[in-house]
Amino acid sequence: MTQRPNDALVLFMPSGRRGRFPLGTPVLDAARSLGVYIESVCGGRGICGRCQIQVAEGQFPKHGITSSAGHLSDFSETEARYVAKRGALEPERRLSCQALILGDLVVDVPQDVQINRQLVRKRAETRAIERDPATRLCYVEVDEPDMEKPLGDTDRLLAALARDWRLERPQIDFDLIPRVQEVLRAGDWNVTAAVHDDGAGPEVVALWPGLHNMACGLAVDIGSTTIACHLSSMLSGRILASAGAPNPQIRFGEDLMSRVSYVMMNPDGREALTRAVREAIGVLVDKVAREAGIAADDIVEAVFVGNPIMHHLFLGIDPTELGGAPFALAVSAALHFRAREIGLAVNPGARVYTLPCIAGHVGADAAAATLAEGPQKGDEITLLVDVGTNAEIVLGSRERLVAASSPTGPAFEGAEISCGQRAAPGAIERVRIDPATLEPKVKVIGDDLWSDDPDFGRVVQDLGVTGVCGSGIIEAIGEMFLAGIVDEDGVIDGALAARSDRIVPHGRTFAYVLWRADPARGTPELRILQTDVRAVQLAKAALYAGVRLLMDRLGIDSVDRIKLAGAFGNYIDPKYAMLIGLVPDCAIEKVAGVGNAAGTGARMALLNRGHRREIEALVRRIEKVETALEPRFQEHFVAAMAFPNKVHAFPNLAAVMPLPARKGPGAEAEDGGRRRRGRARRGTA
Amino acid sequence: MTQRPNDALVLFMPSGRRGRFPLGTPVLDAARSLGVYIESVCGGRGICGRCQIQVAEGQFPKHGITSSAGHLSDFSETEARYVAKRGALEPERRLSCQALILGDLVVDVPQDVQINRQLVRKRAETRAIERDPATRLCYVEVDEPDMEKPLGDTDRLLAALARDWRLERPQIDFDLIPRVQEVLRAGDWNVTAAVHDDGAGPEVVALWPGLHNMACGLAVDIGSTTIACHLSSMLSGRILASAGAPNPQIRFGEDLMSRVSYVMMNPDGREALTRAVREAIGVLVDKVAREAGIAADDIVEAVFVGNPIMHHLFLGIDPTELGGAPFALAVSAALHFRAREIGLAVNPGARVYTLPCIAGHVGADAAAATLAEGPQKGDEITLLVDVGTNAEIVLGSRERLVAASSPTGPAFEGAEISCGQRAAPGAIERVRIDPATLEPKVKVIGDDLWSDDPDFGRVVQDLGVTGVCGSGIIEAIGEMFLAGIVDEDGVIDGALAARSDRIVPHGRTFAYVLWRADPARGTPELRILQTDVRAVQLAKAALYAGVRLLMDRLGIDSVDRIKLAGAFGNYIDPKYAMLIGLVPDCAIEKVAGVGNAAGTGARMALLNRGHRREIEALVRRIEKVETALEPRFQEHFVAAMAFPNKVHAFPNLAAVMPLPARKGPGAEAEDGGRRRRGRARRGTA
Repeated sequence: MTQRPNDALVLFMPSGRRGRFPLGTPVLDAARSLGVYIESVCGGRGICGRCQIQVAEGQFPKHGITSSAGHLSDFSETEARYVAKRGALEPERRLSCQALILGDLVVDVPQDVQINRQLVRKRAETRAIERDPATRLCYVEVDEPDMEKPLGDTDRLLAALARDWRLERPQIDFDLIPRVQEVLRAGDWNVTAAVHDDGAGPEVVALWPGLHNMACGLAVDIGSTTIACHLSSMLSGRILASAGAPNPQIRFGEDLMSRVSYVMMNPDGREALTRAVREAIGVLVDKVAREAGIAADDIVEAVFVGNPIMHHLFLGIDPTELGGAPFALAVSAALHFRAREIGLAVNPGARVYTLPCIAGHVGADAAAATLAEGPQKGDEITLLVDVGTNAEIVLGSRERLVAASSPTGPAFEGAEISCGQRAAPGAIERVRIDPATLEPKVKVIGDDLWSDDPDFGRVVQDLGVTGVCGSGIIEAIGEMFLAGIVDEDGVIDGALAARSDRIVPHGRTFAYVLWRADPARGTPELRILQTDVRAVQLAKAALYAGVRLLMDRLGIDSVDRIKLAGAFGNYIDPKYAMLIGLVPDCAIEKVAGVGNAAGTGARMALLNRGHRREIEALVRRIEKVETALEPRFQEHFVAAMAFPNKVHAFPNLAAVMPLPARKGPGAEAEDGGRRRRGRARRGTA
Repeated sequence: MTQRPNDALVLFMPSGRRGRFPLGTPVLDAARSLGVYIESVCGGRGICGRCQIQVAEGQFPKHGITSSAGHLSDFSETEARYVAKRGALEPERRLSCQALILGDLVVDVPQDVQINRQLVRKRAETRAIERDPATRLCYVEVDEPDMEKPLGDTDRLLAALARDWRLERPQIDFDLIPRVQEVLRAGDWNVTAAVHDDGAGPEVVALWPGLHNMACGLAVDIGSTTIACHLSSMLSGRILASAGAPNPQIRFGEDLMSRVSYVMMNPDGREALTRAVREAIGVLVDKVAREAGIAADDIVEAVFVGNPIMHHLFLGIDPTELGGAPFALAVSAALHFRAREIGLAVNPGARVYTLPCIAGHVGADAAAATLAEGPQKGDEITLLVDVGTNAEIVLGSRERLVAASSPTGPAFEGAEISCGQRAAPGAIERVRIDPATLEPKVKVIGDDLWSDDPDFGRVVQDLGVTGVCGSGIIEAIGEMFLAGIVDEDGVIDGALAARSDRIVPHGRTFAYVLWRADPARGTPELRILQTDVRAVQLAKAALYAGVRLLMDRLGIDSVDRIKLAGAFGNYIDPKYAMLIGLVPDCAIEKVAGVGNAAGTGARMALLNRGHRREIEALVRRIEKVETALEPRFQEHFVAAMAFPNKVHAFPNLAAVMPLPARKGPGAEAEDGGRRRRGRARRGTA
């Protein structure tokens, strides 16, 4: 007879935490004692099914573990009851509150335990976020009233939570108190409490009779143009539904400053803008809840991000101070409040969290994007740009982070461009111009064919060619520059009208005909005017100058990685962004769109309160640069009006794209920029 | 040249705390370091005038101090500026933030520093309550916005409070945030914040531009019959105004159970009752604020007490569960919430505190009365009774406290009595009956003359004689018992009709004519009917039986002191309370009315958060006795139907009042009770 040890080594994946536990310890208890997050609504009673785990079979010599499902106790009666009531577990899965440790184990904690199968919908892969939510569901069995120990029903509920869930001095939302007696009796003294704890101690914020096995959270990114809303299960972390809608504040002003003006000029302007955005969010919440098949009451937590003006208006704060120096935020810190305080139609006790703002024009959306992309975690100098009507820029590495904003205006969203439109089916998003013939080919949103494909007629038929979206404008102008149609100063060369009927006079300047009208189909002619080129030059120069000021602040002359956040950043081709000089030169493979980073950051804050503390601490560390105050802004701006830039070199770009020769006296280097770069480095040394 | 020590001994009165301080220390700093509470709104800038102190002159050999005003620094320029702006200080007073310690001192901290003289109104003396309020005013000078350090305005306000007032991580009421920028600019970056801290950390709950030198608090006792409201200055502790009003819920039911029935029978009953009491409180708040000449916005804190049903209805909680066993309170603990959550028209950020309830029928009012009277502090066995439609009883001493309630009904408030009325001018409140002639003399509320005074006609002229209030009924029945008009079983002796025309037939029983009608003046005849005597017997027997159950629980047969709380308890003559057997026998000089003890307790909780912790801890210690569950209740009740009691002796009473001889087989003792007492003692030994 071999002697068995009386404890076992257990390794939890993916966290990698490990420890020795006495034989007979429930896996859930072992996980908790190591700080490994496994959801459990019922507190280990084997009825909620949330605490599923799976044993990795085999030898793990690196850890000295031979792991086997046989090292767990047999399937328990409780588990059998669970399966009989709720349906079979996925193969190999066990309830960790029931399975006891009988030998060494490698335990996988699945990141998407689903128990309500009807809710599973296929979605684009999203980032798996480690969970430690501020709001948890806690099932408890409450003592019945006793005349000799006349604690109130609410007090006994809180005592049960303190006892069974080891909560320290739990409180309860005042508004819930009048409902406690009814819920306790409806659940025959068994209830599920949503308990919120985000640093100020545990508080019951919602209550249901019996076992309530559903809790959801919202992550909302309030953009000036678009509001994006994701509904996640707080119990599995999974996205249940997403929806977006235009920001209805647009009717009060396209860009941020015109909305601030509206507030300043109209006595009820602030109220109207606040009401508009809150109503739009209400519609989105209703939509995602319906799509996911959940009740609004199941939504117990929400996180909001937005630029400072969106943030203030959403919170009911007058943004007038943000309209002029010193651009004073009413509040910059992260905020906690209750859904009912802003009239959000979710569970009335649901808690809302807004991420901190970084500065007067660098908002909670930039903070969220920073949280999602983590430039502060690496050694690479990373440039994170969220391109919108106001570009928010964060630059740096582990050592130091700086941030600024630049007023790019709405050109990149297709506004202020004669043929511009918002990114929507039928909008031109890709452009190539033959340098020999000056003939263009285009692609439109909604189809993959180029316009020189014989089948493109079908695309025109189906979608039309209705305008040019932001990324299309950038490619059009980039290609016009490559083809010599515009020079580095952005002037459309009228002399080429002799060579191609694509170049046409337009007032005192010239224009490029990107798409010919088709009277048969009723589609318009789309021209890139000289004023359109100027609008893009102004926008990209503002952004580039902002980036450059941050580089000056860090004393660097190049960046290691560029992340383009936001919808626009996701669709733009990095080469063209660099070609027109929107961003500084960088190894092309290190420039990429990162999608809705602000939305991802909001989801991270929703699902893990540790991420809240992380961004709150980080924001305090970020150094703010107010572009309007920097004497060199004008200098950088003027140089950045040129394609790609009058002063700074783009050697990485030149390596993958033959840039036109520089002209005139400003062209110090004809070698694609290598000499200029060397010079600039010396300049900052 | 004598060598001076470099520190001095300072004693603060009335607290008696003392310590040595380096010469040059401001008196305010010295007080703070000893935990002596001295108010200061401006934080030591010499502008609020709240921190006044006074030096006691002379030798204090017991403390080894020779104290002199000359041991303070000279009147400072700041003090001169204060006097120039706000008017002279009272003689001998100094601003403790300006006066520096230059030698040994005995410092008196005045309990009523008044700086707004127009607010001083003469009031009946009220208890001086040591202050440590949960809400304080804090004046701060906030940094202006700085683009390079872009903290929000709110964040800079909180940082200034943390710095100047040593607050740890101060928070701010979410609803205030949208107003912060406006207030900061209106005050030119100087503002006064009301900061609440009652255990959950400091939070700014209100904000005014510049120095705001006024903060008030409400203490409200919601009785079933009457609501009493006191407005106090949170800065001086002084009562600024008081007002009372009938509880308008009376129209839904005179007693508590009829109001619970109304809620049970009517779908919107709970809402209607809640609205009624909140509206009445609103009217009272408006009244006291007007009387004190303050703005509703200056009210930043409120404390409410009431019996459990009043407490629940005020909070918007359905009291149905309190209508039957097990009499489950929805919540028993003390609660904190915001004024706006109950629609209280004071500063919207004002915080509300409700005292804990002791048991299903022993409410926050009983807790407040216990706090005010402190039976738990002494060695004497103290009986504290709040006589209302539901009597709340607390009994015990330092060692042990027990509590119960008894359903006395409204007889003592003049209801259910044929000639009864509420205590108001014109009501008979005192009665004497000549045992020989059976002729009565009476006194009415509003005048001091007895009715046998030749000038009493003037009283009748001015006030009328309109009915009999609670204390009048008790005296009338007590005197009828002494005169032999009713026997110990409460029967009116019809045989006496032969001796006096004051005894008249009334149906099958007899009545006593206490006051003859005066057709000339239109005043009615007032008779004490047999049913009136029965109503009083039932009410007093219920109360006495409750008290006796508590005595049983403590294993005692007599009490050392009786405190009668509430308006009725204040007006009743203790001798008559004992004579009819409302309370047990006790040394007559140790029985006294203590006024509105619940209101005083509420004021204590308003002005000192230490008192909140005290009552919260005490309530957990009080043992609850549910009278309905006690088998001996019926036995005590039956015995207590007799005057003063069938079984228990009243030796202390007999010593001051010749009691009628006992009759029949139950009359074991003819000696005024001495033998009975001995027997009863043996019985419980």
